[in-house]
Amino acid sequence: MNRTTETSVTVIGLGLMGRALAAAFLKAGHATTVWNRTSSKAGPLVAEGARLAPTVGDAVKASPLTIICLTDYPAVRELLELLDASELAGTTLINLTSGDSAQARDTARWAGQRGARYLDGAIMAVPPAIGTAEAVILHSGPRPDFDAHKPVLDALGTATYLGEDPGLASLYDVAGLAMMWSVLNAWLQGTALVATAGVDAATYAPFARQLAAGVAEWLPGYAEQIDRGSFPAEVSALETDARAMEHLIAESEAAGVNAELPKLFKAMADRAIAAGHGGEQYPVLIEEFSRPGGD
Amino acid sequence: MNRTTETSVTVIGLGLMGRALAAAFLKAGHATTVWNRTSSKAGPLVAEGARLAPTVGDAVKASPLTIICLTDYPAVRELLELLDASELAGTTLINLTSGDSAQARDTARWAGQRGARYLDGAIMAVPPAIGTAEAVILHSGPRPDFDAHKPVLDALGTATYLGEDPGLASLYDVAGLAMMWSVLNAWLQGTALVATAGVDAATYAPFARQLAAGVAEWLPGYAEQIDRGSFPAEVSALETDARAMEHLIAESEAAGVNAELPKLFKAMADRAIAAGHGGEQYPVLIEEFSRPGGD
Ligand SMILES: NC(=O)c1ccc[n+]([C@@H]2O[C@H](COP(=O)([O-])OP(=O)(O)OC[C@H]3O[C@@H](n4cnc5c(N)ncnc54)[C@H](OP(=O)(O)O)[C@@H]3O)[C@@H](O)[C@H]2O)c1
Ligand SMILES: NC(=O)c1ccc[n+]([C@@H]2O[C@H](COP(=O)([O-])OP(=O)(O)OC[C@H]3O[C@@H](n4cnc5c(N)ncnc54)[C@H](OP(=O)(O)O)[C@@H]3O)[C@@H](O)[C@H]2O)c1
Repeated sequence: MNRTTETSVTVIGLGLMGRALAAAFLKAGHATTVWNRTSSKAGPLVAEGARLAPTVGDAVKASPLTIICLTDYPAVRELLELLDASELAGTTLINLTSGDSAQARDTARWAGQRGARYLDGAIMAVPPAIGTAEAVILHSGPRPDFDAHKPVLDALGTATYLGEDPGLASLYDVAGLAMMWSVLNAWLQGTALVATAGVDAATYAPFARQLAAGVAEWLPGYAEQIDRGSFPAEVSALETDARAMEHLIAESEAAGVNAELPKLFKAMADRAIAAGHGGEQYPVLIEEFSRPGGD
Repeated sequence: MNRTTETSVTVIGLGLMGRALAAAFLKAGHATTVWNRTSSKAGPLVAEGARLAPTVGDAVKASPLTIICLTDYPAVRELLELLDASELAGTTLINLTSGDSAQARDTARWAGQRGARYLDGAIMAVPPAIGTAEAVILHSGPRPDFDAHKPVLDALGTATYLGEDPGLASLYDVAGLAMMWSVLNAWLQGTALVATAGVDAATYAPFARQLAAGVAEWLPGYAEQIDRGSFPAEVSALETDARAMEHLIAESEAAGVNAELPKLFKAMADRAIAAGHGGEQYPVLIEEFSRPGGD
């Protein structure tokens, strides 16, 4: 990275993730101010050139941009309540703490009322990946604020902008995690099934990888069906899927493998079939996913 | 394709799929004999050069290799029972009918007792894809029989060999379908979530696609943990996943979106945590997937 890109930035919260964020800013050559409730955690960063602010107010005033990364939103709000109007007015806060979309929207409103610019964010990476392109960091809130600070944010990884609604980063974050657990669970289901025939996990994994990557390619096309609200059975009908789900359940039970996920898949498909969608294509299930269930 | 590769092959069952199989053999230049219970369905194939056998016994005797593709295994067994020992002895049957691994193993045993060579198979493609590399066709049974006929099978798509156990093709087939439904369901869950913030399906789909393809890349590495039976939390612990699952459940419920899948994910993770695995990495859940559940 080039010293000519130097800008000053503040990091509040030096847990596992906050320390990785501050270290990445330092490495990119940005003048970095840090603050943490337990100040001793700043030691190694100070040794690398960070400035430790004596108070959280001083930290926020030190830079036009402050990154916040604490345990949760209640901790963020408790800390921000300590700041006075002069410290908040005109500054930009980017809150990378994990939380839900309602907390993000509330905090955006709170900051706006105090004259601060606010972006919410979600880090889709582990601390060792911070500073590499692999670290995807989602942002939502006013576009001009994202654009203004993107050159600094680039030091952390792949800075992605989702839209004006500050709740979007949290929504995409949990949606992404749902995809992660789903792929892992399907792979575990398959691994358990083939293990009953003596196949080891390493032998099965490339097949599961290829399947997941292959199905991922269908999503943009299937999304068009959802946006049009029309689900013609171009390659297969939901009824056909439901029959094959029976096979999956039967194989799982016969093999002594857990059948809870297959049964839930089937129950959701059956509800859509009962609602008259058996001759339509799989994405018609969006109607089941879009209404409350599971209480 | 080259006429010099010509070999004779028989296709029994001319439903949607069987007709596609026979057409692909003809297109590849193989001398193709066909038979179907309802003989009129052979018309267009005969016009393209297929020979219609008068009886199923004649069909099997016409070629060293017979492909069978009927509705289900009971139909296959009912039909094969009509054959006498001289028709079965020394011939090779490849049964591409969908079924479960027990049915495949039973049918392999039945054929072996009558002196026929037998491979079981599963077609992971729709009829229009047959004859293209995209059509993956799984095979299991004796390797020499697969190798002997692979040049002919190549006419149908990507002929894949899984192992000696004739049940493997069915097991991989349902495991692959589980991955397909899982990716689709996770995408639907995410699509429903972001829709509550006004994001359309087309906007969200590329994000879901990237996530699914990215997680797929982890599977071979995670498989090593399973084969070693050791699950160190290299990037995150199951407890951390379980807390994030709470966020997903909370977001889904707050948004009025179905929460059944997130709750099942959490229930499975909670059981593994209760069994003392909270500090280990996600693939430790293989223990939950490998035991009966869901009755
Ligand atoms: N680690 C990851 O892999 C990862 C990945 C993606 C997202 N995240 C998210 O990043 C955030 C931080 O995670 P982490 O791993 O850095 O957690 P962590 O190591 O537990 O650090 C928590 C930080 O929050 C501070 N804190 C907690 N309560 C506070 C309060 N009331 N007032 C002031 N400071 C308070 C702690 O200060 P003290 O040092 O004084 O205790 C510490 O700096 C979380 O929302 C997490 O979900 C983490
Ligand atoms: N279509 C697909 O997308 C697809 C994809 C993957 C796998 N498969 C599998 O391929 C197999 C065939 O599917 P398909 O789509 O071709 O089904 P299909 O169009 O319904 O054809 C069924 C075939 O089975 C024959 N048959 C049924 N019962 C019989 C019996 N007792 N004796 C003799 N013949 C009998 C039918 O003969 P008649 O013509 O005389 O009724 C017909 O040839 C199934 O196992 C299916 O799961 C299909």
